Amino acid sequence: MIGIFDSGFGGLTVMKEYLKKYPDFDYMYLGDQANAPYGSHSAERVNKLVVQNVEFLIQKGCTLIIVACNTASADALRVVQQKYKGKPTILGVLIPAVEEALKQTRFGNIGVIGTRGTMDSNAYERELKKYEKDLYKPSDKRALKSVKVIQKACPLLVPFVEEGMTKAMVTRMMLRTYLRPLKGAHVDTLILGCTHYPLLQKEIERMMGRQVKVISSAKAAADAIEDYLKRHPNVEKGITKNGKRTYYTTDCPERFSELGGKFLGKKIVGERVEV
Amino acid sequence: MIGIFDSGFGGLTVMKEYLKKYPDFDYMYLGDQANAPYGSHSAERVNKLVVQNVEFLIQKGCTLIIVACNTASADALRVVQQKYKGKPTILGVLIPAVEEALKQTRFGNIGVIGTRGTMDSNAYERELKKYEKDLYKPSDKRALKSVKVIQKACPLLVPFVEEGMTKAMVTRMMLRTYLRPLKGAHVDTLILGCTHYPLLQKEIERMMGRQVKVISSAKAAADAIEDYLKRHPNVEKGITKNGKRTYYTTDCPERFSELGGKFLGKKIVGERVEV
Repeated sequence: MIGIFDSGFGGLTVMKEYLKKYPDFDYMYLGDQANAPYGSHSAERVNKLVVQNVEFLIQKGCTLIIVACNTASADALRVVQQKYKGKPTILGVLIPAVEEALKQTRFGNIGVIGTRGTMDSNAYERELKKYEKDLYKPSDKRALKSVKVIQKACPLLVPFVEEGMTKAMVTRMMLRTYLRPLKGAHVDTLILGCTHYPLLQKEIERMMGRQVKVISSAKAAADAIEDYLKRHPNVEKGITKNGKRTYYTTDCPERFSELGGKFLGKKIVGERVEV
Repeated sequence: MIGIFDSGFGGLTVMKEYLKKYPDFDYMYLGDQANAPYGSHSAERVNKLVVQNVEFLIQKGCTLIIVACNTASADALRVVQQKYKGKPTILGVLIPAVEEALKQTRFGNIGVIGTRGTMDSNAYERELKKYEKDLYKPSDKRALKSVKVIQKACPLLVPFVEEGMTKAMVTRMMLRTYLRPLKGAHVDTLILGCTHYPLLQKEIERMMGRQVKVISSAKAAADAIEDYLKRHPNVEKGITKNGKRTYYTTDCPERFSELGGKFLGKKIVGERVEV
């Protein structure tokens, strides 16, 4: 069984991509609503919550765990990867987006948007710089020698999305304000460094213009898993395949079921648990 | 010592009013940032957090505790009042606002705005109906026989205020959307049923128009305490008076210190604690 967790609904955008690729796998989703949003917590607090969630999913029998939250993938992923040493395999959503952006960028001018927690961690810039040697091979001769990263925290986008206001005028207005410095810096690639943002992707693409490649960390994570499972057939073999789905939430199951459905694109029922 | 707590910064608007009246009292403030915002949690979760916070303030020696959060005052206040049976005295911010609104309303048409948690609890309507017999004495002959309560959840106002965006155009836009049904219902009195909202009070008053009385639950709570302490001189005597202030937060002390200062109107330094 694959365990996927997030602070709330965002991780369901990752699960949606997984389901397209592997509909026969068993999945367990955990939304930590009781402690949402992670984006405004300190790194210490996020670490503690991530350990709790991983522990819960292990107890429930998950053999592959996806930290489907950028804030949690930024720092805490390393903590749990070191703690559990590959038993089970724990993967995040940050590196796949970083790899994809480095492959896609034409000029090396990369923008990243996310929560305050993710931006404060500086994880995207750190990883982009770390992987650029191997992956940054721009074909355009006007490209920068080394990638330039512009990060912008967008703390209100998660509340807007969680309110279901993806098409509201205030959301568009706020988006325009957040995206202005990235447009001004002429980024050619923009990473959506938060699993809530795929619900705003069309609007973001429209605002940034056709020349800008928008990379969803949810979509990139799903693409990366395919490659990962091919390289690790034993992990793939360990995943049970009965098409089973279980949804847990640490608070407000009614709201989770109602809004979660919008994220996943189909009806779900969340059961309340303590982790 | 008076202990004041809230899910975050909101309670500092209450403390600000207290300090004006009783600058010589000792105060301990606890902002439960790690679990903010309470407004989107379930009642069960809020109850649990409120018990934790009260326990912490008792351990620290507080003899009077103020639950300076409407969501926490809505249901959980009764839980802790019953648990501690007056030792120490625990007061909330909801009843003072209810009493004030019933005294001020001209026609009995009362609006309430607050978080989703506070509105879902229906506590304001319940208490307004409970106290109207004693306190609703409208002088205007066109007044309603029984008060009519219109509640409107405004879930995004707390995020806006916590982002320091009290004067932003998007905030005004969102406010206009939230206040529209209350204006349409011609409320003559509007309760700000969230301790974050005093920071938006001028804008709300401007939008609602001069005929509408806007009642701040923070201000009402401070006015009520004066009356309470006169009637309970032993509680007043028990409060230490060295002008001492201590600020605790359960997460992100830098952010707490920075933003908290805006709420209180003066510089503060928050110390991180586990509760």
